[in-house]
Amino acid sequence: MQRIILIPDSFKGTMSSLEICEIMKAEITKHYPRSQIISIPVADGGEGSVDCFLRALGGERVTVPVNNPLFEIIDGAYGLTDGGKTAVVEMAACAGLPLIESRKDPLGSTTYGVGEMILDAARRGARKILVGLGGSATNDGGCGAACAAGIQFYNGKGESFVPTGGALREIARVDPSRRDPALDHVEIISLCDIDNPLFGPAGAAQVFGPQKGAGPDMIRVIDEGLEHLADIIRRDMGKNVAGIPGAGAAGGMGAGLSAFFSARMQMGIEAVLDTVRFDGLLSGTDMVITGEGRIDRQSLRGKAVIGVARRAKRANVPVVAIVGDIGEDIAGVYEEGVTSIISINRAAVDFSEARKRAKSDLALTVDNLMRFCKRMEQMKGGAAR
Amino acid sequence: MQRIILIPDSFKGTMSSLEICEIMKAEITKHYPRSQIISIPVADGGEGSVDCFLRALGGERVTVPVNNPLFEIIDGAYGLTDGGKTAVVEMAACAGLPLIESRKDPLGSTTYGVGEMILDAARRGARKILVGLGGSATNDGGCGAACAAGIQFYNGKGESFVPTGGALREIARVDPSRRDPALDHVEIISLCDIDNPLFGPAGAAQVFGPQKGAGPDMIRVIDEGLEHLADIIRRDMGKNVAGIPGAGAAGGMGAGLSAFFSARMQMGIEAVLDTVRFDGLLSGTDMVITGEGRIDRQSLRGKAVIGVARRAKRANVPVVAIVGDIGEDIAGVYEEGVTSIISINRAAVDFSEARKRAKSDLALTVDNLMRFCKRMEQMKGGAAR
Repeated sequence: MQRIILIPDSFKGTMSSLEICEIMKAEITKHYPRSQIISIPVADGGEGSVDCFLRALGGERVTVPVNNPLFEIIDGAYGLTDGGKTAVVEMAACAGLPLIESRKDPLGSTTYGVGEMILDAARRGARKILVGLGGSATNDGGCGAACAAGIQFYNGKGESFVPTGGALREIARVDPSRRDPALDHVEIISLCDIDNPLFGPAGAAQVFGPQKGAGPDMIRVIDEGLEHLADIIRRDMGKNVAGIPGAGAAGGMGAGLSAFFSARMQMGIEAVLDTVRFDGLLSGTDMVITGEGRIDRQSLRGKAVIGVARRAKRANVPVVAIVGDIGEDIAGVYEEGVTSIISINRAAVDFSEARKRAKSDLALTVDNLMRFCKRMEQMKGGAAR
Repeated sequence: MQRIILIPDSFKGTMSSLEICEIMKAEITKHYPRSQIISIPVADGGEGSVDCFLRALGGERVTVPVNNPLFEIIDGAYGLTDGGKTAVVEMAACAGLPLIESRKDPLGSTTYGVGEMILDAARRGARKILVGLGGSATNDGGCGAACAAGIQFYNGKGESFVPTGGALREIARVDPSRRDPALDHVEIISLCDIDNPLFGPAGAAQVFGPQKGAGPDMIRVIDEGLEHLADIIRRDMGKNVAGIPGAGAAGGMGAGLSAFFSARMQMGIEAVLDTVRFDGLLSGTDMVITGEGRIDRQSLRGKAVIGVARRAKRANVPVVAIVGDIGEDIAGVYEEGVTSIISINRAAVDFSEARKRAKSDLALTVDNLMRFCKRMEQMKGGAAR
C-alpha cells in the first residue's frame, strides 16, 4: 500500500484521536515501512481539538492573555494553521469547566475570553475561525464573547453590562452596531456534535446545567434567561436562534455565535474533512482507517465514521472502521461506504477491564489487519487466481 | 476466491465446530455465492466427533447393540466413512458419562461397548479405526474393551473376568492370544488431546476421577489398580504403557488401546488433517479459516489452529484464525503460519454475556472479513497500485 489515511474519532473514555493515530501508525509502519501514512485525528470541538488540527495540518499554537470563566486573566491558547488563514479556538481553553472545577459558577461565568481569542485570531489575519464548543463552564448564551467583540448589552436603566447566565433576564436591549470590524469578513464555524435547542426541556440549562453545578433554581433562572435572550435577539437583530439545532450547545454559545458572529454550525467531522481538504487527499490513497468508540445506528447521524465513509465512497477508496464496540442495526453503515468493521475487543471482559487494555488491544487489531493486507498483497503478486 | 476451507475447532462452552462451520459458510456464501467452501469441523474425540468426520468426509452412521458403562445393552452408533475403510468410534457413545449421569459408578463401569464397536467396525471391513477418548465414565484401563475383543484377564484363582476400575488390582494375568483376528490388520488410532500419564498425581484417577464420581478412597483404589495393570501388561505382554503421554486419558483407555489394540495416539487435529487428506485439499485453495475458543501460548502445543497453520504454511495458503479470545504471548502463532487473528468479541461484555451472542458475533465477524476480502479483490481488479 502506498498511502493510508488514519482519521479516527476518539474512543470516549479510553483514547484520544491523537493517541489512536499514534498507535495505528506505529503498527502500520512495522508492516509497511515505506508507505505514506497521513494522520488526521478528528476533533470534536472539545479539549484537544487544537492539537488535532495542528497535528493534521501543521501550524502554530498562539498564546494570548484572555479572561477565564470568572473574569480572571489567564494565558489562553488557540491554533493557527493553513498558513495562518485558519484558526482553531477551543472554548475549553478559556471557558472550560476544568479551569474552575472547584469554583463552578453557573450564574456568574462568562465566555468573554472566547470572544477575545476569536478577535485576536481575526486581527492576526485568520479568514476562517473554527470554534470548538465542548467542555464549557458557562451559561451566558455567548453574551460574554459578544461583549469582547464590541457588541453592547444594556439593562433596563440603560447601563451597558456583560451578561452572564444569571443576568440574561436583565438584558433590555442589544446593540451590535459597534462590533469590531476585524470580524467583518471572517467566516466563523461552530464545531458542535449535538443538536439541543437553546431552551426548554432539551435546552442548554436543563440538559447541561447540572454538570456545570446548577441546581433546580439556577436552571430555571438560566432557562428563562436564554429564552429571554432569544426574544431580544429576534427583536433587536432580526435573527431567530430559538429553533436552531445546536443553539443550546455550550450554555447557549451555539445561539450566541450564530447571532453575534454569524457563525454556522458544523459537525466536528465535517469541519475536519473540509479543513484538511480530505477529498483531495483521497486521490491516490489505498485505504482509509477510521473509527470511534462505538458504532451503531447513531453513527449514521453524522458521526466521524460515516462522514469519512461517505466521502471515501465517492472516491472509491476502501474504509475500515476500527471501533470499540459494534452495536446492533449497523447494516446502513456499509451502504454509506464502510467496507468492514473491526472491534478491538479481543477478550470477553467488561468495559471496566477492557478500557485498561484499549491501547494494546487497538495495536493488536491494527497489527492483524496489516498482516492480512500484506499477505493478500503477496498472494496478488503471486499466481493470480 | 475460488475455494475456502473452513476447519475450526469448537469454541468450548459456546459453539460446536459443526455449528461454526455452518455459520461461517452461510456468511461467506452471501459474498461469494460461487466459491467452493469445504467444511471440516474439527473433532476432538469427544461427543460429536462422529458427526464431524461424517460432515467432512461423508459416510454412514452405523448402529449396533453394545454394552453401556453399566453392562446394559443399548444402541451404540459409530461412523463409517471413506468408502467404509475408516471408522470413527466415540467412547462417549457407549461409555460416556451422560449415559449414566445419575448412576455414576467409578469402580464398576466398563468400556466393554467400545470394544464391541471397534470389533463391529473391523468386521465390516474398516482398515482404520479412530477412537475418540472424550467424555468417558470409566476407569477400567480399557480392560472391558479388551475383553470384548477376546483378550482374557484372570484373577488369582485362575478365573476369567471382566476387570472394571475397582477390580484392576485383582488381575493376576492377561492373555492376549485369543484376540479376535478381525483386528489383526486394522490400524487403530486414539484421538486424544491430553497427555496425562496412566497413574500418579497427574494420572487418570487423580485428575479425572472426581468428575466421574470418585471420592478419595475410590481414587486411591483406581490409581493403584491402574499402576498394577501397567505392571501386568509389562510382564505378560512386554509393553510399557506407564509412561506414554495420554495413557491416562479416559480412565486409562489410552493405555488400554495402546496395549491391547496396538493403537497409536494422535491429536484430534492431526487425525482430522490426515483423514481428510488436508494437504491435498490445500492445492488450489485461496484461504483457510480456522479457529478455537481461545488462542494463546497453549495453542502452540498442537491445538487445531496451529496444526492447520503448519500445513497451510507449507502450501503457501493464508490462514485466518477466528477465535473467541486472543490471549497474550501469541507472537509464535504467526510464525507457525497464521496470517491474521480475529476475535469475535464485538463489545466489552464478560463471558456470561458474550457466550449468549457468540453465534451472531461469529457471523458478524465473518461477514466483515468477507466484505474486506471482496473489496480488496475489487481494488486488485481495478487500477493496480
